Amino acid sequence: MLQISEKGKNAPSSPIRKLTPYADAATKRGIKIYHLNIGQPDIKSPEIIWDSLKNYDISPIAYTDSKGNISLREKICKRFANDEINFNLEDVLITTGGSEAMMFAFMSTLNAGDEVIIPEPYYANYTNYAVQVGFKIIPITAKIENGFALPSMEEFEKIITPKTKGIVIINPNNPTGYLYTQEELEQLSVIIKKHDLYLYADEVYRYYCYGGKHFSVMNLKNIEQNVILFDSMSKTYSECGIRIGELISRNKNVIASSLKFAMARLCPPALGQVVAEASMDTKQEYFDGVRQEYMTRRDVFISELVKIPGVVCPMPKGAFYAIAKLPVKSSEDFAKWLLEDYNYNGESVMVAPASGFYATEGMGLDEVRLAYVLKVEDLKKAVIILREALKVYPGRTK
Amino acid sequence: MLQISEKGKNAPSSPIRKLTPYADAATKRGIKIYHLNIGQPDIKSPEIIWDSLKNYDISPIAYTDSKGNISLREKICKRFANDEINFNLEDVLITTGGSEAMMFAFMSTLNAGDEVIIPEPYYANYTNYAVQVGFKIIPITAKIENGFALPSMEEFEKIITPKTKGIVIINPNNPTGYLYTQEELEQLSVIIKKHDLYLYADEVYRYYCYGGKHFSVMNLKNIEQNVILFDSMSKTYSECGIRIGELISRNKNVIASSLKFAMARLCPPALGQVVAEASMDTKQEYFDGVRQEYMTRRDVFISELVKIPGVVCPMPKGAFYAIAKLPVKSSEDFAKWLLEDYNYNGESVMVAPASGFYATEGMGLDEVRLAYVLKVEDLKKAVIILREALKVYPGRTK
Repeated sequence: MLQISEKGKNAPSSPIRKLTPYADAATKRGIKIYHLNIGQPDIKSPEIIWDSLKNYDISPIAYTDSKGNISLREKICKRFANDEINFNLEDVLITTGGSEAMMFAFMSTLNAGDEVIIPEPYYANYTNYAVQVGFKIIPITAKIENGFALPSMEEFEKIITPKTKGIVIINPNNPTGYLYTQEELEQLSVIIKKHDLYLYADEVYRYYCYGGKHFSVMNLKNIEQNVILFDSMSKTYSECGIRIGELISRNKNVIASSLKFAMARLCPPALGQVVAEASMDTKQEYFDGVRQEYMTRRDVFISELVKIPGVVCPMPKGAFYAIAKLPVKSSEDFAKWLLEDYNYNGESVMVAPASGFYATEGMGLDEVRLAYVLKVEDLKKAVIILREALKVYPGRTK
Repeated sequence: MLQISEKGKNAPSSPIRKLTPYADAATKRGIKIYHLNIGQPDIKSPEIIWDSLKNYDISPIAYTDSKGNISLREKICKRFANDEINFNLEDVLITTGGSEAMMFAFMSTLNAGDEVIIPEPYYANYTNYAVQVGFKIIPITAKIENGFALPSMEEFEKIITPKTKGIVIINPNNPTGYLYTQEELEQLSVIIKKHDLYLYADEVYRYYCYGGKHFSVMNLKNIEQNVILFDSMSKTYSECGIRIGELISRNKNVIASSLKFAMARLCPPALGQVVAEASMDTKQEYFDGVRQEYMTRRDVFISELVKIPGVVCPMPKGAFYAIAKLPVKSSEDFAKWLLEDYNYNGESVMVAPASGFYATEGMGLDEVRLAYVLKVEDLKKAVIILREALKVYPGRTK
């Protein structure tokens, strides 16, 4: 019999998308669904990009350099330098979205069975990358009671083994919205250095911090060779569809290995690179405006959300996600019920059950991830629906 | 010490691109280089695509469906149906280039150590995919004396083991230009059925056949579940940079597994999909014109090439590549010498040593892969340079 591989069998479905059939069915029944499940911002891409597409006429649309266009890489170096994050042109590979940067980095540095520590909850696709590359995610739980702060270094030390090859830090965090402080990251750097680990850093939301200042791991001292940075245009410029990201590391061996994988897929998308390059001239006002919009959404959404009896949700400090604890036994059952059996004046809400963002079995069962990527009026409505739904949900626990 | 993974160490560099530093140095010295090494066509993309970019204004440029836009998938089904290749909408996933289709298929069907038979010489990136996924390529040599025809079924049977999970067929072939006949493929299908193997078929050049008619493995009887097809817009529409391809299979388990990997990378490029969809309305005249152009190039190039004493090159019947045997001991040394030490009136030629297209150690050492993607005048000049170079090359064998 034709077989599917172990990896094909073991790869998880996206926890964000797996309830989509229920949402589709609800929509077919005429229910309007507010999507809090997925981080697809409704924020417009910068106006500045459109001319780059209108004027594009290079025929044939050819392969670019496997590393990405040099003009784009130069602009990326400059953009980071403006933010006081410095590295050389040779330290950057343009990738097909941040996800490809992650795959190249893991594939270049991890053998089957190697262990990587990730504070949970974490961006769920890492579980899929771990299956694909064959490494093992060792979760360390960031607790909702602590606002999802970085677990103590003692806790990290406890789970480091000879197989541990690296630690992943998502900052600001998806899905918790936590913003790691410089102190937390400096503490972490001591462990990274001591055990000679890779520090894989996912800073794709760094432009969207509310209040606190983002500190990049690229500026940690003494671990310059250990750091591998994942960046993406998707969220910074609200251009998820162009599929342009970057792998950045001062470790030449990591870049050399990644480049071999990059050559095998030929090049990153040429049109996406054109748009990305045009995006680099986006004025600060754009980011200020977007940041203000997200901040307003966050303030309205979270302040209303935590008024619901039994709901706990630490205030996110960056990105546009929050993890909320609900007074339910199973957030997955609740999420399905919202789509299948409930509506409030013909409307309902789609949320992502949080268990898919944890590696530890049994964690996050009463939590959901919420993306506040809708406009304020819709977020207000969504919270009302959640509140009213929880009043009548048969599986309510308290 | 920070380590690079075994895969990172073992992944090969592209044999097409590895001599690039020598070519760059030659260009810097003022030598004009004719690039016969790489399959980047100079043929223009269809005119019909430009309006799709000029008129594109969907903001934000958002993620698409992980499967690709349904409108594009529908058009792809229709395009294939026009060519009498029939399958359903659910059998297609849009991928980031043909290369991603290959990775998804291999990752979905092969475990570490599984064996896949590929007639050599073959598209060199398969070696890289094998390293990434962890399967083993078992080569079966297609001989230049036989014009690179499919080896006999007896030879296939000899190397099939319990670990053999599939066979890769590239048709028309890159790098040989060989076009497999319906009869050859039907013979192969008996073996595929008998041993219950996957038939991975790379038909990305199927629009460019000269003389013979292309027969798709999708039309082989009795092995509908075994066939996995890789397609790409890159060569068909001379749009290598849009990075849009397709994974097509009637095997629902293969598609379901691949979709999980597809979700983890979120979506194929949105802008590339827009261009791809516009390309679908390309008129037959475009293909006829391009085919005629390639045929003319082939005829001029190969007929001149085989006049050089000691050069053997079977006439390619499709794609735009040829493998030529040269009167040299090492085609790699010769290729380097062409770039480092030779010029003919200030011009030289870059060729790809063929050994990188073979898995068997020692094969192809006196062969090169040549891509006839230059205009006729340049191809004529390139052949003259090769002829004159071989007259004076110190490593000439006969």
